[in-house]
Amino acid sequence: MTHPLPDRIVVVLVRARNPNNIGAVARAMHDFGFRHLRIVSDYAPPFETARSAVDASEVLAQATTFATVAEAVADCTLVAGTTAVGERALEHPLYELAEAASKIHSEAAEENTRIALLFGSEKTGLSNEELSHCHWLLTIPMHQHEQMRHPSMNLGQAVAVCLYELIRTQAAPSTLGTREAARADEVERFTEHFRRLLEASEYTRRHPANCSDEQIRRLILRMGLRASDVPIWMGIVRQILWKLNQPE
Amino acid sequence: MTHPLPDRIVVVLVRARNPNNIGAVARAMHDFGFRHLRIVSDYAPPFETARSAVDASEVLAQATTFATVAEAVADCTLVAGTTAVGERALEHPLYELAEAASKIHSEAAEENTRIALLFGSEKTGLSNEELSHCHWLLTIPMHQHEQMRHPSMNLGQAVAVCLYELIRTQAAPSTLGTREAARADEVERFTEHFRRLLEASEYTRRHPANCSDEQIRRLILRMGLRASDVPIWMGIVRQILWKLNQPE
Repeated sequence: MTHPLPDRIVVVLVRARNPNNIGAVARAMHDFGFRHLRIVSDYAPPFETARSAVDASEVLAQATTFATVAEAVADCTLVAGTTAVGERALEHPLYELAEAASKIHSEAAEENTRIALLFGSEKTGLSNEELSHCHWLLTIPMHQHEQMRHPSMNLGQAVAVCLYELIRTQAAPSTLGTREAARADEVERFTEHFRRLLEASEYTRRHPANCSDEQIRRLILRMGLRASDVPIWMGIVRQILWKLNQPE
Repeated sequence: MTHPLPDRIVVVLVRARNPNNIGAVARAMHDFGFRHLRIVSDYAPPFETARSAVDASEVLAQATTFATVAEAVADCTLVAGTTAVGERALEHPLYELAEAASKIHSEAAEENTRIALLFGSEKTGLSNEELSHCHWLLTIPMHQHEQMRHPSMNLGQAVAVCLYELIRTQAAPSTLGTREAARADEVERFTEHFRRLLEASEYTRRHPANCSDEQIRRLILRMGLRASDVPIWMGIVRQILWKLNQPE
């Protein structure tokens, strides 16, 4: 049996600006046997000019584009963001790549899972809004040069290193098989209902410092919702909302 | 204590043609804290145009150039070549990257060692002559696409993956500390004496199929000469040569 991991992994490039980098990412995916590339972009991605993508035409040809991170990860059960750390205050659990790969293998061993690996733009990485779609973050361990405060890797190299680590540590499939994680779009829909609940309950008004979209999304992601639990939670929230909207 | 590994490693690019690739390699080295870059080239390397090397100027500025692989690895005690395998008949031991990294760590833990990592040109990899300077080869495990017979990675990505694996698997320093490996230039000088011996003894004439320069070099490398053994072996060969040249 071939290991199913590459089929479970979706590489998501968020606002990648340089077509050479997109091509280099596609080539790295091709080299390590990964196929699912998604591009989040607010303008037409320059696939045609992704000329450094020797032998990667199949990956590029099958790549899909999305306007938002939420749409790009909608069918994913785990969303892992990549970060160079730097000075950003981290709101997420952060794992070094090797540990992150282990967690990804565990997720991939479950049924009906799909894992998104998010890579931000070359210059700015992932924004706080984009990071808020992530369950957790991973970082590639790099040398800390004293004179530089924001280490960052070339995009193609970062993807190559991450995919290598995933291939390298191919774990035997777990026999757990019990937990089926919720898809990101289900969680997002639930999050929206939950946000309405916070507003309807005036929590939002009284605790505005806790209620940015990103904070609420992370709050829900930290629940680690199982697919089978989503309808239950939805039912609860809907019920509360209904009650809140009842005339006294 | 910082791990000494990066100081023990020399990245050697052999006939790299694309200045962007040289820049990308320098950047990957910078990211992972490696500093020693050597370029083997028969024409002036286009450092100035290595424009993708963001923040890598120090690595590029300190890079040194050599006309031959032998000169570039002269002060190294271990020379590891990288290969995409392909259809070339392998004359060397071949290790997957993870195992190769373990061997490199063992070498780096010894005193007075320096390890060369050889990367060939983008199109053709390392030639047989160039490979003959290697003690062994390493390969990055890649997906085997049915339609492609010669998988090969982007040079910058290949270097990034190799250096990541070396950093990732930083082993505790070994306590062996007894073996001091011979430098490559000492081994090469010995090999030349040995070749003269083969000729003087007419082995070369009677067994020409075993006596290409490359075959002889590999033969000697497989001895795994210790530094302290080289003078002994040299003395033996010289003595035999002297004897062979004596009039009867």
